[in-house]
Amino acid sequence: MQGLLLVISGPSGVGKGTICRVLSQRLPNVYLSVSATTRAPRPGELDGKDYYFIDEPQFIKMINNNELLEWAKVYRYYYGTPRRPVFNALDEGRHAVLEIDVQGGLQVKRRAPDAVLIFIVPPSQEELRCRLLKRNTDAADEIEERLAWASREMAALKEYDYAVINDRVEDAVAKIEAIITAEQCRVRRFALKEE
Amino acid sequence: MQGLLLVISGPSGVGKGTICRVLSQRLPNVYLSVSATTRAPRPGELDGKDYYFIDEPQFIKMINNNELLEWAKVYRYYYGTPRRPVFNALDEGRHAVLEIDVQGGLQVKRRAPDAVLIFIVPPSQEELRCRLLKRNTDAADEIEERLAWASREMAALKEYDYAVINDRVEDAVAKIEAIITAEQCRVRRFALKEE
Repeated sequence: MQGLLLVISGPSGVGKGTICRVLSQRLPNVYLSVSATTRAPRPGELDGKDYYFIDEPQFIKMINNNELLEWAKVYRYYYGTPRRPVFNALDEGRHAVLEIDVQGGLQVKRRAPDAVLIFIVPPSQEELRCRLLKRNTDAADEIEERLAWASREMAALKEYDYAVINDRVEDAVAKIEAIITAEQCRVRRFALKEE
Repeated sequence: MQGLLLVISGPSGVGKGTICRVLSQRLPNVYLSVSATTRAPRPGELDGKDYYFIDEPQFIKMINNNELLEWAKVYRYYYGTPRRPVFNALDEGRHAVLEIDVQGGLQVKRRAPDAVLIFIVPPSQEELRCRLLKRNTDAADEIEERLAWASREMAALKEYDYAVINDRVEDAVAKIEAIITAEQCRVRRFALKEE
């Protein structure tokens, strides 16, 4: 059985990274997609694990060669999902999980209509501000910019298939596991394969 | 949160009844809809528990008074779902489970588009024949008639939302529980409530 293409989006600070990590620990057959980006690594981030850190000319070349499943320019940096490892994983029957923003998620949906789009919702805007402040890696004005960005991201929620509130990580992950099980039972999915 | 309206269909002998019973034992907030029918009780069946056993004039009156969420004539008997207890359960936040045939399921979908239609699939046609023979309550020609009916029911599968193979009852029930969890996360469902 072909794996599912799962897109996980939501505002910065909502806990997408933790959710994806726990999900991949609980399910053996998950491929966590690694994005390419032109932004500088944060302390502790590893090339090829957290991101492929590449320069702008390299990124433009990948766009032109159609090697990206989706890409976007956020702030002044490029982010994108290399296409090949995702489809390799799906063909091996693994679920490919893309932790990307809503612009990217909607691009993926257009190119792969059987993708499952999951939006992670913070319990509240106040909680989101707390989490960003606790993370402590961003300057204050960058936090305000991220909160404004978060509001715009929330507006894209209606384009997504599922909304999962990240109150407790374990509950959010359990809901995503249920979504995976349910999606594998969808009749539409059987029909797509026959065509 | 409003409960879900779940339709469980599938060929005779596939194990719908057992699945619904186990599901209602595992989930405290499930209302198992009791159908009305004009057919005679089988040994051990109780009025008001397995079915409301009513006569044909009474049934026709319920149709005319729009007291049925769906109804159909199968073989020479009427079957139908009384509307009021289903919507009472949903308003109380319980999930209403309707174990009905595909004609009825599609009627429910038209009248309540947010209903979730689940089709229970036998592991194979041979397995289905074995189960019907083991049940031993039906005459041989009735079994053949039911198998032909089962084939026609399978053709309606594509109109349903989910297909769950009943290989092991516990696995089938776990999948339905996952479908319930996933459906409660569906963005479309939040949108419906806002309108």
